[in-house]
Amino acid sequence: MIKWIPRGVCAPEGFLAGGAACGIKKEGEKDIALVLSEDDVCSAAAVFTTNRIIAHPVKVSKERIKDGYARAIFINSGNANCCTGEEGLKATKQISSKLAKLVFDDEENILLASTGVIGVHFPVTKVLNGLGELVENADTVGHTSAAMAIMTTDTFSKEAAVVVSTKKGKITIGAMAKGAGMIHPDMATMLCVITTDADISPQLLKGALKESVAKTFNRISVDGDMSTNDSVFILANRRGVPIRSKTSAEYKHFISALDAVSMRLAEMIVRDGEGASRFIKVVVKGAYSQDEAVKVAEKVATSNLFKCSVFGGRLNWGRVAAAVGAASKKVEEKTLEIIANGRVVFRRMKPLVSQAKPMLLDKDLEIVIDLHKGKYSYYMFTCDLSPDYVLINKE
Amino acid sequence: MIKWIPRGVCAPEGFLAGGAACGIKKEGEKDIALVLSEDDVCSAAAVFTTNRIIAHPVKVSKERIKDGYARAIFINSGNANCCTGEEGLKATKQISSKLAKLVFDDEENILLASTGVIGVHFPVTKVLNGLGELVENADTVGHTSAAMAIMTTDTFSKEAAVVVSTKKGKITIGAMAKGAGMIHPDMATMLCVITTDADISPQLLKGALKESVAKTFNRISVDGDMSTNDSVFILANRRGVPIRSKTSAEYKHFISALDAVSMRLAEMIVRDGEGASRFIKVVVKGAYSQDEAVKVAEKVATSNLFKCSVFGGRLNWGRVAAAVGAASKKVEEKTLEIIANGRVVFRRMKPLVSQAKPMLLDKDLEIVIDLHKGKYSYYMFTCDLSPDYVLINKE
Repeated sequence: MIKWIPRGVCAPEGFLAGGAACGIKKEGEKDIALVLSEDDVCSAAAVFTTNRIIAHPVKVSKERIKDGYARAIFINSGNANCCTGEEGLKATKQISSKLAKLVFDDEENILLASTGVIGVHFPVTKVLNGLGELVENADTVGHTSAAMAIMTTDTFSKEAAVVVSTKKGKITIGAMAKGAGMIHPDMATMLCVITTDADISPQLLKGALKESVAKTFNRISVDGDMSTNDSVFILANRRGVPIRSKTSAEYKHFISALDAVSMRLAEMIVRDGEGASRFIKVVVKGAYSQDEAVKVAEKVATSNLFKCSVFGGRLNWGRVAAAVGAASKKVEEKTLEIIANGRVVFRRMKPLVSQAKPMLLDKDLEIVIDLHKGKYSYYMFTCDLSPDYVLINKE
Repeated sequence: MIKWIPRGVCAPEGFLAGGAACGIKKEGEKDIALVLSEDDVCSAAAVFTTNRIIAHPVKVSKERIKDGYARAIFINSGNANCCTGEEGLKATKQISSKLAKLVFDDEENILLASTGVIGVHFPVTKVLNGLGELVENADTVGHTSAAMAIMTTDTFSKEAAVVVSTKKGKITIGAMAKGAGMIHPDMATMLCVITTDADISPQLLKGALKESVAKTFNRISVDGDMSTNDSVFILANRRGVPIRSKTSAEYKHFISALDAVSMRLAEMIVRDGEGASRFIKVVVKGAYSQDEAVKVAEKVATSNLFKCSVFGGRLNWGRVAAAVGAASKKVEEKTLEIIANGRVVFRRMKPLVSQAKPMLLDKDLEIVIDLHKGKYSYYMFTCDLSPDYVLINKE
């Protein structure tokens, strides 16, 4: 039984969090955040963007996570520290060096992430001057302050936490994320920090995170653009239930709780997609291969034409059919079936809802595309495309 | 020397064209078009969409073009005749059968195309009733009437014609096209009819058309969506200069003229992209393979984020760098170079124009991405993404 609880990344005992304003953003908005384990070092794992152009904090964190341990995660918003030259790399190291002194730890145990605009001089002095206050602010109720400090064009902060009961006790998992634009698998401009009290080894934790991300954060697309900064971190302070193997009951509980938290945040990211007014689930069934299922789902989930019609509150399923035909090498009109919110709109070459009167949509849309060619399936989450998306991104 | 001349598809002697209104579109707008060779049958070739879901007229035309000969091309706008079931196929055949009688030819020599909404009952009776007037209207000055009748969300009709001098005389090529939305390689909702007086065999003509389309119509993207109906047709009535082999001087003149006409129309399609306000040329150089060059160009040309910034009159080259890194497997930040309208904005890991003050753009943008990894290159044409694109496509 998974139970939703409050307090985000501070939900598991032993984690402090907080945010502060150092002046990267204007008007005193919070722009630096810290998540810190009270105890010594945690088991740690992370998944990063697969973009070949990556931000400096991603480069540094990738190296530091290799040993499987970390104690704190520092995030700044407002500047991506990407394409910023050697001085950007130096800035990342200066920040973690100073933070390490403030929390009395080794800088190798501090992971970093940045989000914001690419290719702008990184204001390292501002950040360094803000670190003292940031560490002071970090406490057991600072989860929302931290979640707000990592926002960019997000319109609301994103937090989730669950507790799951096992025979050996309760496992708690908390998390925060930011999303908004540039959202696409592997992994989009999204950042996520997950905390847990589970007593799990770095190796098991790494496998669990990968598995969960593949089912959740890697299934969302807002605009098909992939960021240079995406990172999902997890810290396990090992205060709680021991998880010793992948086949244990505890591991299964842990994974289901991790999936729940990750899915909740992934859905929040899509619902808060830049300019989004509707949530769309694209389900592909009956594909002849897994690759085919993924390609078709991605093509539909990134079809501007389809997503514009959903913004208009209508389903132009013909645009879905066109996207399917463009992505698939084996789809046939005679076997293709399209079902929208439970209603068959196209089957056996026949339109069952005329495009002249496109189907009116409720707020959310679940579109099932059954290719009837094999046994493979895939799903993705996306949102509609609105004029606001363009207006948000034109500058 | 290629010289631009008026009269579109009627530019080469011996071609009639015209449009009429049969009632598919509202308010008496023209919605059916005919291009007809006065003489008997022409050498003919065509390139069609590679979408797996294709419209009935595409299916029929694909079969009929196999022998390399045709005499007339019929196009309707306002209804794509796609996903319309068996009755849609029957409609296509009824139209060509009646047209064949009206022009005293075999229906196998009549090619067809449709453009408009997918999955709506095809109003065959209206079309059949309009064919008499359409054939009557077709004459040697009906080129613009035909070009207007094939428009959907196009804001202007698209025509081009050239004459090129060879030692054996002049070759004339004329054409019309429609584009607007759903424009992406292979081939987008675009239709094009090309006419020529060249005396060329079906086989040579087919090769020439393929070669030219690969360099022009297959390099344009408005929104990354691929249509079910795209077709480019060419008819050669063989009244003029004989072209006997691929190595002849005449063939080279013919190809350069065909490229010029096709490029002009491809550019018009992009400039008239739904909601477009700016024309963008994306050039990728220094790729380690041709596939890499194509992938990078496509990713940049379909990046909503990049295209929104261009709509805003600014170049956020960081979004270009992110798209390059997402598409390429081998790009490295240290070799990546980005040049916008002749000005280097990023080189050797250093931003030379700050994203804080994005580069202001003139109306058109040429962005060169040099990966410095090999010798392969590719280019594509696209346009910006505006709120109007969404508003046009929301219904």
